[in-house]
Amino acid sequence: MHMTLMANMTWYEFNERKDKDVVILPVGSVEQHGPHLPLFTDTIISEGFANLLGDKVNGIVMPSINYGYKSQPASGGGPLFPGTIDLNGTTLINLVKDIIEELIRDGVRKIALVNSHFENQAFLLEAIDLVSKNMPANTKIIMMSWWDLITQNTIDKIFDEIEFPGWALEHAAITETSLILKFKPELVHMDKLIDEKIEEVPTYQVYPIPKDLVPKSGLLSIGRTSSAAKGELIVDEALSKMVEIVNKEFM
Amino acid sequence: MHMTLMANMTWYEFNERKDKDVVILPVGSVEQHGPHLPLFTDTIISEGFANLLGDKVNGIVMPSINYGYKSQPASGGGPLFPGTIDLNGTTLINLVKDIIEELIRDGVRKIALVNSHFENQAFLLEAIDLVSKNMPANTKIIMMSWWDLITQNTIDKIFDEIEFPGWALEHAAITETSLILKFKPELVHMDKLIDEKIEEVPTYQVYPIPKDLVPKSGLLSIGRTSSAAKGELIVDEALSKMVEIVNKEFM
Amino acid sequence: MHMTLMANMTWYEFNERKDKDVVILPVGSVEQHGPHLPLFTDTIISEGFANLLGDKVNGIVMPSINYGYKSQPASGGGPLFPGTIDLNGTTLINLVKDIIEELIRDGVRKIALVNSHFENQAFLLEAIDLVSKNMPANTKIIMMSWWDLITQNTIDKIFDEIEFPGWALEHAAITETSLILKFKPELVHMDKLIDEKIEEVPTYQVYPIPKDLVPKSGLLSIGRTSSAAKGELIVDEALSKMVEIVNKEFM
Amino acid sequence: MHMTLMANMTWYEFNERKDKDVVILPVGSVEQHGPHLPLFTDTIISEGFANLLGDKVNGIVMPSINYGYKSQPASGGGPLFPGTIDLNGTTLINLVKDIIEELIRDGVRKIALVNSHFENQAFLLEAIDLVSKNMPANTKIIMMSWWDLITQNTIDKIFDEIEFPGWALEHAAITETSLILKFKPELVHMDKLIDEKIEEVPTYQVYPIPKDLVPKSGLLSIGRTSSAAKGELIVDEALSKMVEIVNKEFM
Amino acid sequence: MHMTLMANMTWYEFNERKDKDVVILPVGSVEQHGPHLPLFTDTIISEGFANLLGDKVNGIVMPSINYGYKSQPASGGGPLFPGTIDLNGTTLINLVKDIIEELIRDGVRKIALVNSHFENQAFLLEAIDLVSKNMPANTKIIMMSWWDLITQNTIDKIFDEIEFPGWALEHAAITETSLILKFKPELVHMDKLIDEKIEEVPTYQVYPIPKDLVPKSGLLSIGRTSSAAKGELIVDEALSKMVEIVNKEFM
Amino acid sequence: MHMTLMANMTWYEFNERKDKDVVILPVGSVEQHGPHLPLFTDTIISEGFANLLGDKVNGIVMPSINYGYKSQPASGGGPLFPGTIDLNGTTLINLVKDIIEELIRDGVRKIALVNSHFENQAFLLEAIDLVSKNMPANTKIIMMSWWDLITQNTIDKIFDEIEFPGWALEHAAITETSLILKFKPELVHMDKLIDEKIEEVPTYQVYPIPKDLVPKSGLLSIGRTSSAAKGELIVDEALSKMVEIVNKEFM
Repeated sequence: MHMTLMANMTWYEFNERKDKDVVILPVGSVEQHGPHLPLFTDTIISEGFANLLGDKVNGIVMPSINYGYKSQPASGGGPLFPGTIDLNGTTLINLVKDIIEELIRDGVRKIALVNSHFENQAFLLEAIDLVSKNMPANTKIIMMSWWDLITQNTIDKIFDEIEFPGWALEHAAITETSLILKFKPELVHMDKLIDEKIEEVPTYQVYPIPKDLVPKSGLLSIGRTSSAAKGELIVDEALSKMVEIVNKEFM
Repeated sequence: MHMTLMANMTWYEFNERKDKDVVILPVGSVEQHGPHLPLFTDTIISEGFANLLGDKVNGIVMPSINYGYKSQPASGGGPLFPGTIDLNGTTLINLVKDIIEELIRDGVRKIALVNSHFENQAFLLEAIDLVSKNMPANTKIIMMSWWDLITQNTIDKIFDEIEFPGWALEHAAITETSLILKFKPELVHMDKLIDEKIEEVPTYQVYPIPKDLVPKSGLLSIGRTSSAAKGELIVDEALSKMVEIVNKEFM
Repeated sequence: MHMTLMANMTWYEFNERKDKDVVILPVGSVEQHGPHLPLFTDTIISEGFANLLGDKVNGIVMPSINYGYKSQPASGGGPLFPGTIDLNGTTLINLVKDIIEELIRDGVRKIALVNSHFENQAFLLEAIDLVSKNMPANTKIIMMSWWDLITQNTIDKIFDEIEFPGWALEHAAITETSLILKFKPELVHMDKLIDEKIEEVPTYQVYPIPKDLVPKSGLLSIGRTSSAAKGELIVDEALSKMVEIVNKEFM
Repeated sequence: MHMTLMANMTWYEFNERKDKDVVILPVGSVEQHGPHLPLFTDTIISEGFANLLGDKVNGIVMPSINYGYKSQPASGGGPLFPGTIDLNGTTLINLVKDIIEELIRDGVRKIALVNSHFENQAFLLEAIDLVSKNMPANTKIIMMSWWDLITQNTIDKIFDEIEFPGWALEHAAITETSLILKFKPELVHMDKLIDEKIEEVPTYQVYPIPKDLVPKSGLLSIGRTSSAAKGELIVDEALSKMVEIVNKEFM
Repeated sequence: MHMTLMANMTWYEFNERKDKDVVILPVGSVEQHGPHLPLFTDTIISEGFANLLGDKVNGIVMPSINYGYKSQPASGGGPLFPGTIDLNGTTLINLVKDIIEELIRDGVRKIALVNSHFENQAFLLEAIDLVSKNMPANTKIIMMSWWDLITQNTIDKIFDEIEFPGWALEHAAITETSLILKFKPELVHMDKLIDEKIEEVPTYQVYPIPKDLVPKSGLLSIGRTSSAAKGELIVDEALSKMVEIVNKEFM
Repeated sequence: MHMTLMANMTWYEFNERKDKDVVILPVGSVEQHGPHLPLFTDTIISEGFANLLGDKVNGIVMPSINYGYKSQPASGGGPLFPGTIDLNGTTLINLVKDIIEELIRDGVRKIALVNSHFENQAFLLEAIDLVSKNMPANTKIIMMSWWDLITQNTIDKIFDEIEFPGWALEHAAITETSLILKFKPELVHMDKLIDEKIEEVPTYQVYPIPKDLVPKSGLLSIGRTSSAAKGELIVDEALSKMVEIVNKEFM
């Protein structure tokens, strides 16, 4: 059996590879994704990419960070949806910091975070920054979010009918729906998908968060025209970029 | 499809059940478990029990807390084994506290933690205690560790040949090996298992942790005589107790 | 003298107005802004907007938060430039939280943050979110960043010659240079401005931050064609939007 | 006067010995111990052992940490008893960490904690672990809890009439009562001792902690048959082990 | 036996009195006090006052907080003297906060801190302030430091020969030496006392703290002319003021 | 233009001087200062001194820390006055720590804090102490508060008519009023000044803070006889001392 998952390895198996192979940490969230996608959408996507990447670069994929930072209305629907489980910023920072520091203490020097939850970004980088202030000289840590790797060309193909609303608003919409159709089709309820979207994208933030800021369904953009084929398009491009990045930075 | 996993639910599905059903949070670890068991042994066991329990009591099983508190030499081999990923105490406390507080904000009032990592216990209880100081009156949180639910009678059956070394030392030994043989047999390498154990159980703690405190393999007790049948024995008893407890406390 | 600045008020003067007037908190940073702009560029802009807004809505402008969150390479040049003074995330969160909680304890119920440092956003919102979990029911807090208020029409006018690189990259470039030319022209050294920009926008993050990620000058985009007139254009549009927002939310 | 107590030393006296002598830190608690034992039972026991140990190994005994971690129902009666003063976990961790780090900065390299409060254990070890990550190479820290040093043979002698309930439940019962009869007999009210014990030892934890989990008196096990002689038996054995350990680790 | 010490009480005894009697918490330090006074000088003084006060007002005296905030050069000699054990500010804040909050949860409503370590003051008040933001309406917390209660008249009597150097510099000098001569004369080595004092009182602070800022002995002011009689003078006045204060605030 | 303000410098300008020039950080507060002085009194004074000092020693003056530690009744009127914005102790510690650590990372080795808010002192020193535990060997940090630099001779001149009440009580009184008359006369409302003072200086602390502890106006001492000339006297003396100190410590 070719080994990718750290979860399944014995410590002997991990020990043999830890000094030379890149270790990949998927980071997700538990967050509402409309009436048709599972709460674990982000983690499924992070794990999906991490596993494929691990296969390609002979990497070791760690167990995911299953819970992420607070959902924001204009990128995830916000905290008011039941089932959205939000960590405080400091908690996520410390969680990621502890895990990376343990890897480094174990001798790992090549670390790649794969993120798929928009709101995680600032806090993951804060954790990495704090670690990096005291890490051994030959250590390198990278963070990749799949949407940053998609070219305009691919965007044009995916948004063939619906206009691209920008990445922040692509929540539970065409790209994420297509990715779950690719990674875990059995969890997508296309029959529940409706044509709702955020009517007026807020240009500022208000607290307490107004209840009518986003549609009742939690959908921020139109998800119609999603397909496994589009998911594959995204996976193909993002994955090949990830492989390129890992090769460039770690090989 | 009967729904147990919160990960797979849409927020609509979670929303309908959150007020009445018990929500189950499995807590595990990434920790060395000798030459024959996977690093994810504890999480596999927690998830295994949580899923079975969820089925029995119509509960909702949350995504696991994948990383746990620091492994101790005399109950987990300690931090020196590569692949053991240890969270700081305060990090684990805050992680669990945030997740439970989010459940409560969502309206959940019945929360059950299923733990299988010995060293997690004090820190999980600290998190629950902190939450409980400010929670709504009708909220209840319980924590169960499977070994606390096993009777002497069952212990006698399992330790038919090898003497029971006490629960702390039952690390990567008969009970955990049997449980993985039951839950994920494909991850057990019985051919790698050797007859090693901690020779002298320390009666005090020393830091820096001496490298020769535990056997090189990380095994603390003899694992021979493990079997899926014994795993089933443990699962049967612990699960029926868990069902009883949940029924008593929440119904 | 019409009173806008809390700094200059006696407590009697503040006391009379605190219950009814909106209190405005400018948040800036101390960060490299190329060879031609001052380190205090962001704070100057926040204060500039806050003072104008205060005049328009009869608001009270607090002393600024002078230091902000860590500069990122692709939106501020990053931490390697001397003179960039970066707060840790948790520090900024607690600083903003303490200040807002004190306002609320004093009886203030209308609070508006004016931000002009890209990297502050996630941490300011975390602070506000934490406060909002326990604040009196009639309290409202808003946060505005000027760039979110600029329409495509205005962008087209400002980027008449140079192509708009996106807001994150608009660091020490046309919009910020024009704003300082408007607010504090004596601090702009147009003769030092050179035609440098980030050559390849990174699509992922690497730590330790590579020294050659951004140009030596710290410029991320072309600043040529900046002018006080363009600054005025931005101020006019953003300010009128801010007034609208404050009126809508607080009046 | 032979000097054991750091409290009574001048800094000159401490200074002369700090580099070569072991420094002993007693850790206790303020916790209910039934109707017949003082709230300071644990601290009295820790100080009792520390003073005797200090005499034997020419050690320096520090002032005690008087307050400990939260009492748990099944090992101390829990937090509901007035007079039980519980520190939060993070507070105790930082307190112990600060004190040990100060010793190390002063040049001390041999540090021994003597603990007698069951619930302290995990948090003391967390503090030591955090210190040990950055301490000078020739520093060693040990922690001893007296019950870990008692042999089955002695247990058999002490539990001549009453059955040994296990260490966790030995709260305010035979061993602790005997120890206070040995260390501070004037503080024991044997006339107030009643024959109560926890009827059903909980096999899981519930929050809020049920009021009827432990007997009203706070007694967890039968204390009858306690005696100063039994206290002496425990002291003799534990002390000789402590001396052995200190000699082995530090000499 | 008249009961003053909480340490010696059973929880039954504490329980009966907790609602009506004032609870007194002595706070001290472990700090160099020259060649003639013990490291525990401050705690001895706090306990001395607390016990006398407890007797007079029928109060309950808690076990002391034995360790205090960082010694400063110009009020305690500073951190460079071996035997001075300094807590970080946040640690002391949380320690005091936890203890007071536990008292309040137990039903105590009258709390008095007795402090004798100059440097503790700001951090004790911070702890009390944090508690006071959320405490029941009928709770009151006071803090007394003995030197604040001494009148000019008494100062004149004590400084009959030596000039009063101000309270901050009265470290290990006439007042503290006299107090220990009163409370624990057997711990004073008057033969070791020398006539040293800080030559130039610093008018600003420097870090790293210069080694020659204070005399090698750690004495900041002249201690000659100390006597148990002067100690009694101080005790009499401060104690009668403390009784007055407690009566005024709590009765 | 001679450059003193870091705020106005480009990073190139800061970069050229950071290794050799002293960097000055003014620390103030937002706090009630009676009916005649602005809320920003302390920051105005700190900036006033810092700018003058910067000119004299060719120093670099950083943007101020605008918010300070909690006002105390007997030195600032306390937290009950609207407009007094109090930071928690830990927040101020971390804020100052972060800023100084960033300076050190940038290569700065000469750092001077100029403080004018009495209550800040303990927390600024805590921040500096924490930094100093890990800073490069050739780094030096000093902290100066202007009142510590005033001689008795000058005090006698300033308190020609009114008796000197001690520095803690000199809040919004003669010295601060004179300083603002010197630094920002347009912000002083001498016509609003009344002859109020704290009647009985508290000799202990009570929480909740009694509302009648200080006069309604917030004045602690008599401010009559304040003048710009007296302000100049203070500035002259304190400034010449500051120059002396900086020269002694850094040149």
